Amino acid sequence: MTSAKGRVLLTGATGFIGRYCVPALLGRGFEVHAVTSRPPPDDEAGATWHRFDLLDPASCWAAVDAIAPTHVLHLAWIAKPGVFWSSAENLRWLAAGVSLLEASAAAHARVVVAGTCAEYASGDAACSEGRTPLRPDTVYGHAKAALYHAFEALRAGSGLNGAWGRLFFPYGPDEPPGRLIPAAIESMLLRREFACTDGLQSRDFIYVDDVAEALCVLLASDAGGAFNIGTGVPTQLRSVIASIASRLEGADLVRFGARLRPASDPDFVVADMTRMRREVGWSATTSLDEGLDRTVSYWRGRLGTQASLA
Amino acid sequence: MTSAKGRVLLTGATGFIGRYCVPALLGRGFEVHAVTSRPPPDDEAGATWHRFDLLDPASCWAAVDAIAPTHVLHLAWIAKPGVFWSSAENLRWLAAGVSLLEASAAAHARVVVAGTCAEYASGDAACSEGRTPLRPDTVYGHAKAALYHAFEALRAGSGLNGAWGRLFFPYGPDEPPGRLIPAAIESMLLRREFACTDGLQSRDFIYVDDVAEALCVLLASDAGGAFNIGTGVPTQLRSVIASIASRLEGADLVRFGARLRPASDPDFVVADMTRMRREVGWSATTSLDEGLDRTVSYWRGRLGTQASLA
Repeated sequence: MTSAKGRVLLTGATGFIGRYCVPALLGRGFEVHAVTSRPPPDDEAGATWHRFDLLDPASCWAAVDAIAPTHVLHLAWIAKPGVFWSSAENLRWLAAGVSLLEASAAAHARVVVAGTCAEYASGDAACSEGRTPLRPDTVYGHAKAALYHAFEALRAGSGLNGAWGRLFFPYGPDEPPGRLIPAAIESMLLRREFACTDGLQSRDFIYVDDVAEALCVLLASDAGGAFNIGTGVPTQLRSVIASIASRLEGADLVRFGARLRPASDPDFVVADMTRMRREVGWSATTSLDEGLDRTVSYWRGRLGTQASLA
Repeated sequence: MTSAKGRVLLTGATGFIGRYCVPALLGRGFEVHAVTSRPPPDDEAGATWHRFDLLDPASCWAAVDAIAPTHVLHLAWIAKPGVFWSSAENLRWLAAGVSLLEASAAAHARVVVAGTCAEYASGDAACSEGRTPLRPDTVYGHAKAALYHAFEALRAGSGLNGAWGRLFFPYGPDEPPGRLIPAAIESMLLRREFACTDGLQSRDFIYVDDVAEALCVLLASDAGGAFNIGTGVPTQLRSVIASIASRLEGADLVRFGARLRPASDPDFVVADMTRMRREVGWSATTSLDEGLDRTVSYWRGRLGTQASLA
């Protein structure tokens, strides 16, 4: 029996964003059918788990066939910190995505796919879905842009009903260690020096609960095409690190400028949120202060003992 | 034994552009290994023919494995006039292209792929590889843009050595009937009315010999990334049709404005040829007058008898 809202085929359910999408989807009345290539997690979290290896194109079709989804939320992608930017595995996820989108179009499922702000050309203005060119400068950004164009080809030619959510900089409890915010928190909790760049880059940080909400709102809508998923608010990395340091009395540990910024690191990557607000009536609701409070609390819980030993 | 210049795996060898590439490659000292899913043509044209169905990804790998090319010139794509713009088959050629490019990267072959000006956003200025956004509005344009981003991902992450040639408006003898220039010539040779739009659109028409030359020059170079393949010269459709009419005494048959222009038909699609000239020293050499002379002669030869009966 299918719930009133529908059956969602969710990929990437065990990832950082995916873990937040499961309760967000269930809370909106969707049945959640999570696809994973590994054994299901111990905490099944109210989802039904299905085992398929999406990197095999035939399995994408088989998964859609077995689950018969009314909706597909496709988040699965290589995400290993430091590695995903330039790994050749990005191409395998492109091929997987094309197959999954073709199968979804054939099944007449409503689809939302996680894209990225790394698809955009860098510049001084907020990134606009309609105006900013797609001009990635990483393997990851190119592979996502490739899947975006395949998605648009399927919308235009095969009746695919879908939205493409371009995620800016999600953060929150359980973000993979090694990325900026967890790395800064960990350093300070463990009273280790935190070497970083000058921190003058502006980014659009969005709390992970808001990302999951935005993806669910898009999935439940019938909006078509690309939508930024950010807050619209620029924050300098310097200021994020200082906020973390002030919560953890770690200001003495921060070494701004100890690392050189790579030439490819853009100055300003912030979403223009007009389209998401106007077309689906959605805006982020968690302030950076609230989000950092929750994130720091989470890490205190996980690393507290070690921190007190440091 | 491999010739001094190398072994080229050529796809799309039986197509409009491909048929001109075979002699152009042979003339430059390349061995030509043409891949086709059908039996080889009667006129083998100095190429070695290999039978593989590129739409099966495993066959792309098998073709590269069997031919062991030093170079790959990838032209194969759905091209059926009127149909290719919105056919779902574009997605199958995208998947084929990704596999062929992955196999080519693994084989360390130098690669050139035929892209299209339909990848670009339309606007009033000449299309520039570095400045004009990729913002297609057709299934065909999106699928080619998707393959372009996959190509760039492979250049950035897998050491692919290659150039992406964005073809503008090739014309010449043997162009598939149904496209503008052969349709106009045929109407006039057969003394039939030729109904067309107002013809105020400007396009960059490039003679097919020049297209084949440009692709060979790119293949023999080590230039990387996207290159426009056009002339840089805007010509209004009206003027092309008038030129054909004056060669065939058909001015009385032309009905400008008898067809409405579709809203999606852009006013101006012309290449900025700076990059091709500067980086590989190539410019088109055939004037539109020369090219139309040759094209009209060709059709006179083929349709002459019928025309004299009309």
